[in-house]
Amino acid sequence: MFELDRYLKQRSALVERLLDAAVPRSEGPSARLDEAMRYSLLDGGKRLRPILALAACEAVGGGIDDAAPFACAVEMIHTYSLIHDDLPCMDDDDLRRGRPTNHKVYGEALATLAGDALLTDAFAVLARSPLVERAPALVVQTIAELAEAAGSRGMVAGQVIDLLGEGRAMELAELEYLHGRKTGALFVASVRGGARLGGASAAEMESLSVYAKALGLCFQVVDDILDVEASTEQMGKRTGKDQAHGKNTYPGLLGLERSREFARELSRRAVAALANFDERAEPLRALAAFVVERKL
Amino acid sequence: MFELDRYLKQRSALVERLLDAAVPRSEGPSARLDEAMRYSLLDGGKRLRPILALAACEAVGGGIDDAAPFACAVEMIHTYSLIHDDLPCMDDDDLRRGRPTNHKVYGEALATLAGDALLTDAFAVLARSPLVERAPALVVQTIAELAEAAGSRGMVAGQVIDLLGEGRAMELAELEYLHGRKTGALFVASVRGGARLGGASAAEMESLSVYAKALGLCFQVVDDILDVEASTEQMGKRTGKDQAHGKNTYPGLLGLERSREFARELSRRAVAALANFDERAEPLRALAAFVVERKL
Repeated sequence: MFELDRYLKQRSALVERLLDAAVPRSEGPSARLDEAMRYSLLDGGKRLRPILALAACEAVGGGIDDAAPFACAVEMIHTYSLIHDDLPCMDDDDLRRGRPTNHKVYGEALATLAGDALLTDAFAVLARSPLVERAPALVVQTIAELAEAAGSRGMVAGQVIDLLGEGRAMELAELEYLHGRKTGALFVASVRGGARLGGASAAEMESLSVYAKALGLCFQVVDDILDVEASTEQMGKRTGKDQAHGKNTYPGLLGLERSREFARELSRRAVAALANFDERAEPLRALAAFVVERKL
Repeated sequence: MFELDRYLKQRSALVERLLDAAVPRSEGPSARLDEAMRYSLLDGGKRLRPILALAACEAVGGGIDDAAPFACAVEMIHTYSLIHDDLPCMDDDDLRRGRPTNHKVYGEALATLAGDALLTDAFAVLARSPLVERAPALVVQTIAELAEAAGSRGMVAGQVIDLLGEGRAMELAELEYLHGRKTGALFVASVRGGARLGGASAAEMESLSVYAKALGLCFQVVDDILDVEASTEQMGKRTGKDQAHGKNTYPGLLGLERSREFARELSRRAVAALANFDERAEPLRALAAFVVERKL
């Protein structure tokens, strides 16, 4: 029987160590920048994306060392997006993972620059991956997909659609399009990148894409549900803000009960996509159950 | 006799076409993002960094097609840095290249996101370079150096030192350290990246690094001089602001006359570094003269 709790604890500790080494403290005149980057990067997030990247690498028989720099890069990009999202000109949030947001501590200028630096350094970490010696083409391909997932056709596009869509009711298809970019693209890139660096076949890449797409959407539907149901204390960030901001959400569109059912359906769909994988995909299966049951 | 004027006109027109193709207009719900990116990217800047990249590629005998995606990436990163620099929480500028700054037209949120997207897409453009088929290792190495030049140990560090140093008098060595990061790092990466993709030898890379370092500093000294001497109309951006912001500058530290002499000395140093190059380096030599004589 696979023990997800223990697995998550071990893997998030590993990711924490990798991130700590990837963004070291410096002594020079820009030490405050490193401090701001590390403040948001090493704050004990769930590390879902890097854990998915490592799990996908193992599911196809790869060794996690080959995917470790990539896992760091993914979490650095996720963290930059949170720092910029929280800025006063964006969602204007002052609480994240139970602590003051980056700009509350370091000011808006430094928070903007810390986000910029995390995004940029992510590509350096990935391009300096030891795997480059053996398989430079795999690394370039992974960089390309990650940049596309995070850029103007992926995550940033999702942010813009979300921003421009506030206060205007969306159809279900439009909401799915938005989340496919805002959350889904980075989930898919995390899983595909980990698998590619682990030596996945084309058929494995295909199945894992279906898995990751369903899982990413599932994650977002649950996020929307938790924003309605959970308290600020439980979540460590301000909740109930989607409605206050006139944001489009699944509970807003489908109601809570149908949203819960939709999330369970997406989780089942993710697991079904792994039918041809052996027991090495057990963590990915367990993660699909975890995402739908999570309370924060 | 090499005609720099005609060369610059041809090359900046080429860069404009490359950039136009690299960041296409889209039709979807995030079309406004593309518009914001293109507003700042296609505004007829000097294109000095991509022109340097292409010239360095040719100076070592490469064909410019191999460096074209890299040249785009460099200018996209430069443009993102200008958009974020101009934000109210940073330099709070409302004029750039004779037009309202990005956030004045699109608002702060979209300007922040347009910068994020240009930075991210730059790596996608580079990683999708056709050269990947023939030389993936060269492309990864170029990505690594570019990300390092732009990230927390390079350009962003320079920004932070500049920001934290406002109103505090710096020594000359400190000012050089600042500019080595804020402007110099991207100059050096532009020249080195173009040369690497053109097939440069280790010795050529070494000479070109010396060239680029001197040229980058020269560019910054002249920038400081123009901020004192030129009018807002000439420059297309607000001038005289360094002193108003309590910024550390070369004229502030050395006086105008010694700053001019220092700039000329740096330009000579850049040209001297190219002693072992043949006539294919003529554009690089002419660019070193141009940078010190430029009026905007």
